[in-house]
Amino acid sequence: MPSKRIGKQTVKMLKPPSIVGYASVVGKKEGEGPLGGSFDYINEDTTFGEKTWEKSESRMQKEATERALKKAGLTYDKLDYIMAGDLINQCIASSFAARESEVPFVGLYGACSTMAEGLAMSSMLIDGGFSGLSAAVASSHYCTAERQYRTPLEYGAQRTPTAQWTVTGSGAVILSEEGPGPYITYATMGKIVDLGVKDANNMGAAMAPAAHDTLAAMFHDTGTSPADYDLIVTGDLGSVGYDIVLDFFKRDGISFNGNYKDCGMAIYDAEKQDVHAGGSGCGCSAVVLCGKLLNDMKAGKLKKIIFAGTGALLSPVSTMQGESIPCVCHAVCISADR
Amino acid sequence: MPSKRIGKQTVKMLKPPSIVGYASVVGKKEGEGPLGGSFDYINEDTTFGEKTWEKSESRMQKEATERALKKAGLTYDKLDYIMAGDLINQCIASSFAARESEVPFVGLYGACSTMAEGLAMSSMLIDGGFSGLSAAVASSHYCTAERQYRTPLEYGAQRTPTAQWTVTGSGAVILSEEGPGPYITYATMGKIVDLGVKDANNMGAAMAPAAHDTLAAMFHDTGTSPADYDLIVTGDLGSVGYDIVLDFFKRDGISFNGNYKDCGMAIYDAEKQDVHAGGSGCGCSAVVLCGKLLNDMKAGKLKKIIFAGTGALLSPVSTMQGESIPCVCHAVCISADR
Repeated sequence: MPSKRIGKQTVKMLKPPSIVGYASVVGKKEGEGPLGGSFDYINEDTTFGEKTWEKSESRMQKEATERALKKAGLTYDKLDYIMAGDLINQCIASSFAARESEVPFVGLYGACSTMAEGLAMSSMLIDGGFSGLSAAVASSHYCTAERQYRTPLEYGAQRTPTAQWTVTGSGAVILSEEGPGPYITYATMGKIVDLGVKDANNMGAAMAPAAHDTLAAMFHDTGTSPADYDLIVTGDLGSVGYDIVLDFFKRDGISFNGNYKDCGMAIYDAEKQDVHAGGSGCGCSAVVLCGKLLNDMKAGKLKKIIFAGTGALLSPVSTMQGESIPCVCHAVCISADR
Repeated sequence: MPSKRIGKQTVKMLKPPSIVGYASVVGKKEGEGPLGGSFDYINEDTTFGEKTWEKSESRMQKEATERALKKAGLTYDKLDYIMAGDLINQCIASSFAARESEVPFVGLYGACSTMAEGLAMSSMLIDGGFSGLSAAVASSHYCTAERQYRTPLEYGAQRTPTAQWTVTGSGAVILSEEGPGPYITYATMGKIVDLGVKDANNMGAAMAPAAHDTLAAMFHDTGTSPADYDLIVTGDLGSVGYDIVLDFFKRDGISFNGNYKDCGMAIYDAEKQDVHAGGSGCGCSAVVLCGKLLNDMKAGKLKKIIFAGTGALLSPVSTMQGESIPCVCHAVCISADR
């Protein structure tokens, strides 16, 4: 059998799994942004009909998964695994969303890299012969994240220029051993990178070195360069982190010629929507992927992309204890061809 | 290729990965319990030399991983993945423990089922050809869990008879594509089961139905019965949950003849150590596995066991919002023969 392990961090799928369904569900603000037209469902009051924000987020994940299944012409009973995660303490958005599904549940925690982690793990289980159909799901909600990581919204705390706005949204991808594509062809799992950033209001700067590390590993392991991809997209670095990644690659002598973008910068109109450095949260990369990006792949506008989810593995407790922010980035290559 | 998927929930490893190293690290109370002699390291003041409990737990995970690597004659640079999780918000014990390892990091959240989840996922990646060597790691700490889930210790809150004592401990297992065994031969990933228990001080009752569900699936999918195993062990149901599992199986017409045990009942002397219904936490099943159980397998006293991690996927927020407790159980079969 030809090797699936190429280089130190990257794996190659021998029979790349196909994305057969995907859906994105967002809140009002995301619906009003530049990608508003790409989402499957926009909830106008951001409660999704629930009485608490945590339940709203859980409902959102369920909605995204069920819409993705429906678009693929499938039902829960066909799924071998749901791999899901979120930012809420003990990942309750995910476990409550999957509660009635009767599908084996693999809980993940990759902070905002969760969608990429779920795609990578699902793909390995499918290509490894352990699964025929899996769902990768992630979510975040502005109102759950603010009270989780920062302060309750009612306090009206002022935001710094480097702060990002947590996306209210959930994306779900259904992966299958058979299908017309696009395909997950490679996955690069990230190491934890922590260059000492301690400012929890500057996640972009904290996560950028992890994004650089994983992207550099993927280029190295696959023997490719940015020119080999139509688009390279990071999860949610925002404008501050984005510039740092460009800067790091410039030092390596690698340039992008305009084909590097960041989901956190794409989802909002930073000025008109007053989001400072951009969007963030597990939902950010999840809904940009399950909206604009996969739509463009379906339409043939994009043939081969790198989707690199970036996560800050901090908690309010680690911040209060004076710790720096360990970060991770997981990346998958998504291609129209197998 | 013969099918790796047998039944709805179980996978069979075609070339079962071998456990090549394991280690357990615990606190004082665990060291004084009936399994004290089986642990690799007992820390007498439970701080592990750190200034905060969260850092103590993280240090404990690092210690367990490094001891397991050392016992296997390996170093971090040989590992393809660390798969780890814990109970602290945003799983910081795990991410901070792996921060300097330079190993691709897969964050898991399975509450107290995390060790079983990590063993299953690591085994699938190894048998699937995506990894040569992986570590599965989990931890819990009495002092982090109490202030996380219940009340700060200083409050001196009274415990109910059904309450369990969170184990201070971390276990790490190193899995390899080659080795002398014992081997992970099967894995059954659990569905979320929630029969409506709302009492966060009675986790055993909440988790028992999930344990029954997954064990029943494993017996069904592999065509085995309890008599085919030297031991079937659940993670941390304690005495209350244990009796419920026995009761559920009795209704199914299945009996155990004394070969069903629970890690939560094994780790403490419930009466002398005043732990009420038993031990709990990610660390509970992790250190019982990485102490007594794997020692007994090494010594040939046990040839074939089912290790079933049980997790309660609640958070203090879901409890306060009046929700019941979704639970999960993941199980692996560990066998001396491939």
